[in-house]
Amino acid sequence: MISFEEARRLFLSRIRKFGMDDTEILPVEEAHLRVSAESVASPIDIPHYDRAKMDGYAVRSSATKGASRKTPVELLVGEEVSNSTCVWVNTGDAMPEGSDAVVKVEDVVLDGDVVKIYRAVKPFENVERKGEKVGRGDIIVRKGDVLKAAHIALLRSAGVRKIGVFRKPRVLVVPTGDELIEPNDDLVAGKIFESNGLMISCYIREWGGEAVQSSIVRDDPVKIRKVLMSKGFDLIVTTGGTSVGKRDHVYRILSDCGEVLFRGVALRPGKSAIAGVVESTPVLSMPGTPAACISLAHLFLKPAIYRMLNRGGEVSFEVKLEGKIISKTGYTDFVAVSVDFDTMAARPVSNGELGMVDANGYVLIPEEVKEFGVGKIIVYLI
Amino acid sequence: MISFEEARRLFLSRIRKFGMDDTEILPVEEAHLRVSAESVASPIDIPHYDRAKMDGYAVRSSATKGASRKTPVELLVGEEVSNSTCVWVNTGDAMPEGSDAVVKVEDVVLDGDVVKIYRAVKPFENVERKGEKVGRGDIIVRKGDVLKAAHIALLRSAGVRKIGVFRKPRVLVVPTGDELIEPNDDLVAGKIFESNGLMISCYIREWGGEAVQSSIVRDDPVKIRKVLMSKGFDLIVTTGGTSVGKRDHVYRILSDCGEVLFRGVALRPGKSAIAGVVESTPVLSMPGTPAACISLAHLFLKPAIYRMLNRGGEVSFEVKLEGKIISKTGYTDFVAVSVDFDTMAARPVSNGELGMVDANGYVLIPEEVKEFGVGKIIVYLI
Repeated sequence: MISFEEARRLFLSRIRKFGMDDTEILPVEEAHLRVSAESVASPIDIPHYDRAKMDGYAVRSSATKGASRKTPVELLVGEEVSNSTCVWVNTGDAMPEGSDAVVKVEDVVLDGDVVKIYRAVKPFENVERKGEKVGRGDIIVRKGDVLKAAHIALLRSAGVRKIGVFRKPRVLVVPTGDELIEPNDDLVAGKIFESNGLMISCYIREWGGEAVQSSIVRDDPVKIRKVLMSKGFDLIVTTGGTSVGKRDHVYRILSDCGEVLFRGVALRPGKSAIAGVVESTPVLSMPGTPAACISLAHLFLKPAIYRMLNRGGEVSFEVKLEGKIISKTGYTDFVAVSVDFDTMAARPVSNGELGMVDANGYVLIPEEVKEFGVGKIIVYLI
Repeated sequence: MISFEEARRLFLSRIRKFGMDDTEILPVEEAHLRVSAESVASPIDIPHYDRAKMDGYAVRSSATKGASRKTPVELLVGEEVSNSTCVWVNTGDAMPEGSDAVVKVEDVVLDGDVVKIYRAVKPFENVERKGEKVGRGDIIVRKGDVLKAAHIALLRSAGVRKIGVFRKPRVLVVPTGDELIEPNDDLVAGKIFESNGLMISCYIREWGGEAVQSSIVRDDPVKIRKVLMSKGFDLIVTTGGTSVGKRDHVYRILSDCGEVLFRGVALRPGKSAIAGVVESTPVLSMPGTPAACISLAHLFLKPAIYRMLNRGGEVSFEVKLEGKIISKTGYTDFVAVSVDFDTMAARPVSNGELGMVDANGYVLIPEEVKEFGVGKIIVYLI
């Protein structure tokens, strides 16, 4: 049994970062929350012209010199800007030829065609200069950025119509086990509704992947072999098959048809996880308990999807752990926690789906720790 | 001009919390990330039968009394459990009639039909009791919960097939302004690509709403009136119309056809915001600068959508603010920040879309503060 860190390193080393062949070109408005596959430089200055920041009169600033409440300067309102004339502009209008500042409407009195200006303006006062916000050629999106609302608006402002984003990693999710039944089946003793595969599929979608869920596969080596040989997926995740003997199907098939990366990992929950590669497709095989699936999903599956997408890491920070955690020496423990942001304290929640409903983070208790008392620890937000 | 708090209170007082008429019934697997409209009690015990936790032999625990490495107890493997017989079980199997514990396969030696048991088991050892995880009638989902992967798995485990979720709030987004152009139009001085409406639509989707974006509406009172009278929306958001005179279209139309809640708010950016109600549809009118739209979206639009969905509030916590913020007395300032979780310090970012790309939170500088130096402040995560 290898350590959690070693197992994860081995597994992730076989996850291919997506490249230019793995992109799709989308209209900017459809790229929201996708991951950019390219760095984008603005093709234009933003704004792309000198722009009035206020409603008022575009002037030659030098013409307002000395203007004050007591000594207003008078300019004729017209179609052109000169030393004796000015032009009305609305916020956002292009600055007229020859003007270099805007006198705010609040600082003037209009008397027929004549504007009395009570406040001098400096060059470019109340003007947004061309390129002031973004210069032509400035990078507005970086490769690996998750395209948030602000990115989309910025791309649109820059006149960018299409952008290359990484396609969603396709993950085949295979729930296995003779004990599993579909929602419409009869609930009898010894049978349970399949829920781990469904949960893993939800996680994959949350993390930016495309989940393809197979129907339940019985504990039959022929059927499991067939599904592990599936083509067209970036990753295959199996769940369930709860007994030692039965788990061996995956191990044997990986040994026969591909390569075993690890069999068993010093991680709780999740110690009987297996990882391998079949014809260049990585396979992650999770035990059948929800708690193990949750642990392995967060620690192996999420980083794998993020790696494919060239995405940045997770958010982690230090909190005060409340409540004692009994750990097992030699194993890394995954412990879901509920972080109270008011107190920056994390409280362990029970393992499994019921605890996860209340969890917003997890902590890892290192191998060498037997009992973690109240103290500082790094929490990973989920 | 009213205070930010008063303006928000007024606006939110006119946002209707969704009720039972605003729900849709979805298959559980399609309800992922939707907001539950109901509290759901588990219709079954989970597990719904006494379940073997390990591979091994189901026994009557009393029959193993005294078993040890030196004095093994011998039981015959068969089809029934008695004081002298036991039955093989796989993890997850129903406990056979008459059995109350499982002896792990590691703790026995099989010799023909006879199992030598080297360790006594206590009642219910290695057994997951019926209802141990979730009791029948226990609440597994609460009204207002965002249905995460764990909720979906739990609902499925409990055999719940359908769930009532709140429909997505329908928000009409109306970009207005003579200066706005569509992506395929020619970029000439005085014209800019419409981006605020697109950004607001993205936010609405991120926050759980359905955005319906109208085409650009010119600064024409007849056209603006028509769009403000649109039916079938839970909220109408307008953006743009940058000059004082032009903004008045919305104000006059709200005065004529409906009710003005506020005109102007002591908030920067966003001070010229207007809110009203037209025939029971709330209207939020945002100024045309991206910075104002960002501020108003986070402070008015997001809480409105969350309120409709009966959702819980946002995540906020204390950070160290780095860098000085010059504020204006009498105005609440919205300042986007980038929180470094390693140091729990927040750094203000520039206003507008460019800063928002790097922002992961915002702070509010209260009205009475003129200059906020380095110090502790509450950050709201975005």
